[in-house]
Amino acid sequence: MPAISPLAPPGGFPDLPVIDGVRFAAVAAGVRYTDRLDVMLAEIAPGSAIAGVFTQSATRAAPVLWCQDALAKPRDPAHGTAILVNAGNANAFTGRSGMTDVEAIAAAVGERLQIPPHHVFLASTGVIGEPLPRRRITDRIDGLAGALAPDGAAQAAQAILTTDTFAKGATATALIGGKPVTIAGFAKGSGMIAPDMATMLAYIFTDARVAPDVLQAMLADLTDRTFNAITVDSDTSTSDTLMSVATGRADAPPVEGAALPGFRSALHAVMLDLAHQLVRDGEGATKFVTVSVSGAVTDGSARVVAKAIANSPLVKTAIAGEDPNWGRVVMAIGKAGEPADRDRIAIRFGTVPVAVNGWASPDYDEAQAAAYMKNPEIEIAVDLGMGEGHAHVWTCDLTHGYISINADYRS
Amino acid sequence: MPAISPLAPPGGFPDLPVIDGVRFAAVAAGVRYTDRLDVMLAEIAPGSAIAGVFTQSATRAAPVLWCQDALAKPRDPAHGTAILVNAGNANAFTGRSGMTDVEAIAAAVGERLQIPPHHVFLASTGVIGEPLPRRRITDRIDGLAGALAPDGAAQAAQAILTTDTFAKGATATALIGGKPVTIAGFAKGSGMIAPDMATMLAYIFTDARVAPDVLQAMLADLTDRTFNAITVDSDTSTSDTLMSVATGRADAPPVEGAALPGFRSALHAVMLDLAHQLVRDGEGATKFVTVSVSGAVTDGSARVVAKAIANSPLVKTAIAGEDPNWGRVVMAIGKAGEPADRDRIAIRFGTVPVAVNGWASPDYDEAQAAAYMKNPEIEIAVDLGMGEGHAHVWTCDLTHGYISINADYRS
Repeated sequence: MPAISPLAPPGGFPDLPVIDGVRFAAVAAGVRYTDRLDVMLAEIAPGSAIAGVFTQSATRAAPVLWCQDALAKPRDPAHGTAILVNAGNANAFTGRSGMTDVEAIAAAVGERLQIPPHHVFLASTGVIGEPLPRRRITDRIDGLAGALAPDGAAQAAQAILTTDTFAKGATATALIGGKPVTIAGFAKGSGMIAPDMATMLAYIFTDARVAPDVLQAMLADLTDRTFNAITVDSDTSTSDTLMSVATGRADAPPVEGAALPGFRSALHAVMLDLAHQLVRDGEGATKFVTVSVSGAVTDGSARVVAKAIANSPLVKTAIAGEDPNWGRVVMAIGKAGEPADRDRIAIRFGTVPVAVNGWASPDYDEAQAAAYMKNPEIEIAVDLGMGEGHAHVWTCDLTHGYISINADYRS
Repeated sequence: MPAISPLAPPGGFPDLPVIDGVRFAAVAAGVRYTDRLDVMLAEIAPGSAIAGVFTQSATRAAPVLWCQDALAKPRDPAHGTAILVNAGNANAFTGRSGMTDVEAIAAAVGERLQIPPHHVFLASTGVIGEPLPRRRITDRIDGLAGALAPDGAAQAAQAILTTDTFAKGATATALIGGKPVTIAGFAKGSGMIAPDMATMLAYIFTDARVAPDVLQAMLADLTDRTFNAITVDSDTSTSDTLMSVATGRADAPPVEGAALPGFRSALHAVMLDLAHQLVRDGEGATKFVTVSVSGAVTDGSARVVAKAIANSPLVKTAIAGEDPNWGRVVMAIGKAGEPADRDRIAIRFGTVPVAVNGWASPDYDEAQAAAYMKNPEIEIAVDLGMGEGHAHVWTCDLTHGYISINADYRS
């Protein structure tokens, strides 16, 4: 087991509240790992809204294709839904047998929980290209169903980890018509992406009453500013999955009209917290980095520039070396292909002014900048001086640890 | 000084032939380095054709802007041209003073060689954001001019290096109307790009008689399949410069009509050789990797997929680890955003079949694949099965050496 990331939240896994209408179970099924939880089942009460956002990969895994298809189908309101996730095998690039395995697992869960197969959502994370040992999973469904409990989220969060060094959870509350609703979620990923043994998965549950289309739209929109705004290594998984469930069991009015902003803000907080925890567990990470770009011609342009900085190996190695090497930030801005005018660019590292008007800032103090770079949390702020577009992207540094995790072993 | 790259050509720097109409000189001017050549001057006879291809960076350096402007101006056929390059300082992101320095150097060279300033092409490579100590250069122009010699190319190739571990040269000949013409060039770069201290520069000279527009079109077209088809770390320099000079002094007919393909082929060979040498000197490189993509919907699509594979940190670390981890190649194909159908994808490593029809090849032999990965030169071949588009991209692995070079020091 790897040591826990130095950037892990100090308090450990949060005490997630029970969400009325959702029960969890986890089991050590030995899919690939031994002696650890590796399959989790969530059962969701009838009438819940479900929304999902998935990887855009052209080689996405069979369970992702299954979920996208199932979400598009009408669901029977008389029946509940379920989510089953295994770690250790991604069931990706496994030919037609990948979908056969998915169908068999969904049928087995549906039979045990007395729900239609397309009410069963699946995810697999781990090695690509190896056949899924599906019987190790289907053999445990009866036991999982018997163990379902409202307070099982912490175990479920453990069961979906791969190369993660800590389990990630987050919670928030919102007031809807003066009544509290609760949001609780968990995620995995160590590297936004590391397709050998890690993938981003996130599940967020709430007892609020939210219409399915409202939940889906909110989830997709907030994903752009949370999970899609983080990067560890620029590599995109075949299995990324984010799902959200709203059971509507809270004693509170529906989330609509004036209640939307408050709920959206709480959901955003949970998603951002989980997304930041993924970066904090980035492979080999020793620095948590916020890249803020303002003054771009559009928000989209700001995002492209921010991603170019956050994905640059030279920027990331400079941060690892605690080197205030702002020339590499200039390089990354330049390569992004977005409108920029050298003589309007301003750069700061935290509160340290670095560059203005196309050159080093007259206030630049190398010793001050070098001292700032020793912090475990670094902000790189760029103002392009072109317009009103802005974006935030979060990343980590690129260290010997990343090379060791990904090169210094044989599969 | 770093050790020489293990991928360096065994014969060392080639014995470059003299190109009639071109003379070189180099000097140790102490721009940043001490006790080594760091400024080179080339003088080119009147009547020569000159072509150039430059970085697309939005933050490109002052000498790049100068060259683009000078190339667009009509040149006086009665006067020759010159190229001056310094290493150690990139004169990039140096505000308005960057262009003032460029203008002063061009004026000084022009005055000494009796040519108009816009006949002087400049390049600077090294640290970004520091003012160019231009007097260290202008003080040496008289000495450089006095030392110009037809056989000075090897010294000139040394003078433009930064973090390179070896000087790069290449030569070829072509028959034009039965008469031989010669092409000779040199380049620098250790990393296609490493903006702190390295940049891709290449200069190619020929005694063939080539019309300027023909030379420019050929250079731009071949760049796409040579220098623009290599990547070390996906980072794009602020100073990349490729220039080609045709003096027309060979006793051979003009390069036109039926003579074009032969000359083009020879020029292509020199450009590809130099481009490959840049990859062989990639920062920390221990493997030379050819990524071949076929069966894409277009050549452009094949190139995007090939670049996605070649730039993937997970693919590059797997190669460093001698791990035939083809799942990471599948991941990179998927993230490229180009048309692909999992069930038509075929992958091989060299001659080892890895995957067909969306799954591991039935002929896949892990031991054979692992043995193949121990070679210093690796081919990753992907057929998408969608169309006729194909592309080649060359890269190196991502190792602890790259992290050490770029993170384990303070600027």
